[in-house]
Amino acid sequence: MANSEEQKFQVRKLELSDKSKGFIELLRQLTTCDSVSDKDFEDQFMELQSRAEDHQVFVIEDDRSGKIVATGSVFIERKFIRNCGKVAHIEDVVVDSNARGLQLGKKILNSLTNYAHSVGCYKVILDCSVDNKTFYEKCGYKQKEIQMVKYFI
Amino acid sequence: MANSEEQKFQVRKLELSDKSKGFIELLRQLTTCDSVSDKDFEDQFMELQSRAEDHQVFVIEDDRSGKIVATGSVFIERKFIRNCGKVAHIEDVVVDSNARGLQLGKKILNSLTNYAHSVGCYKVILDCSVDNKTFYEKCGYKQKEIQMVKYFI
Repeated sequence: MANSEEQKFQVRKLELSDKSKGFIELLRQLTTCDSVSDKDFEDQFMELQSRAEDHQVFVIEDDRSGKIVATGSVFIERKFIRNCGKVAHIEDVVVDSNARGLQLGKKILNSLTNYAHSVGCYKVILDCSVDNKTFYEKCGYKQKEIQMVKYFI
Repeated sequence: MANSEEQKFQVRKLELSDKSKGFIELLRQLTTCDSVSDKDFEDQFMELQSRAEDHQVFVIEDDRSGKIVATGSVFIERKFIRNCGKVAHIEDVVVDSNARGLQLGKKILNSLTNYAHSVGCYKVILDCSVDNKTFYEKCGYKQKEIQMVKYFI
């Protein structure tokens, strides 16, 4: 049973066909996300593909429903500090509201974090609401600074 | 006099020769930044150059001393949310401790912010210490979330 649960919720890289599996609808649970045309999706997908290891989008597909139920992305910043070091930035982590309680958020986050480690980053950072702080602490993160933002639209 | 001050502290893009103008020493005022060999600096410089508009490092050189006295960087993240929108991340803003009070921090930040706007980002974000919050507020930024971090070394 545990094995079958494991198989059901594997983390894998985003695929082009995930657009038809509810990927955009899932992102809409996170923030404003208008409909994206197939062409725009493919263009952005290829743009991110071209960055190879420096930008990854991970997803979990529910094999029973064929729907994407969790996602998160990570991209790598190259710096001059820390011996020309690399920092990973995690963004856009979301779990389908109908798939909560299955530890999928933790699973996606661990995959993103392990990826950052595997490509030699010296740290991984993310911004979150105060409400989600406890979740990230359980995953080994600590609060450090505050996030400032300026919107252009 | 005002004009001559203006000319003295122009914001421009990082150049390869800035390594010999104290660029690394300036970054050292920000955080851990070991000596970087000319080869490593050139490699990282070319790597960032290859990203064209998606990664820019700005500097201010003091024409009197020939030293780099302020810097900051901005890189562009491409998302699926917000109509496949772009977000700018500002990092590694620092002003030489001997050049404080000349509004160079504000000058660098405004240049980075304007750059983000000019390439079509819908927002620009950065993380800072609570101590620096007021500075960023004066530059039009607002606190939104908190930053979580995990170090690998």
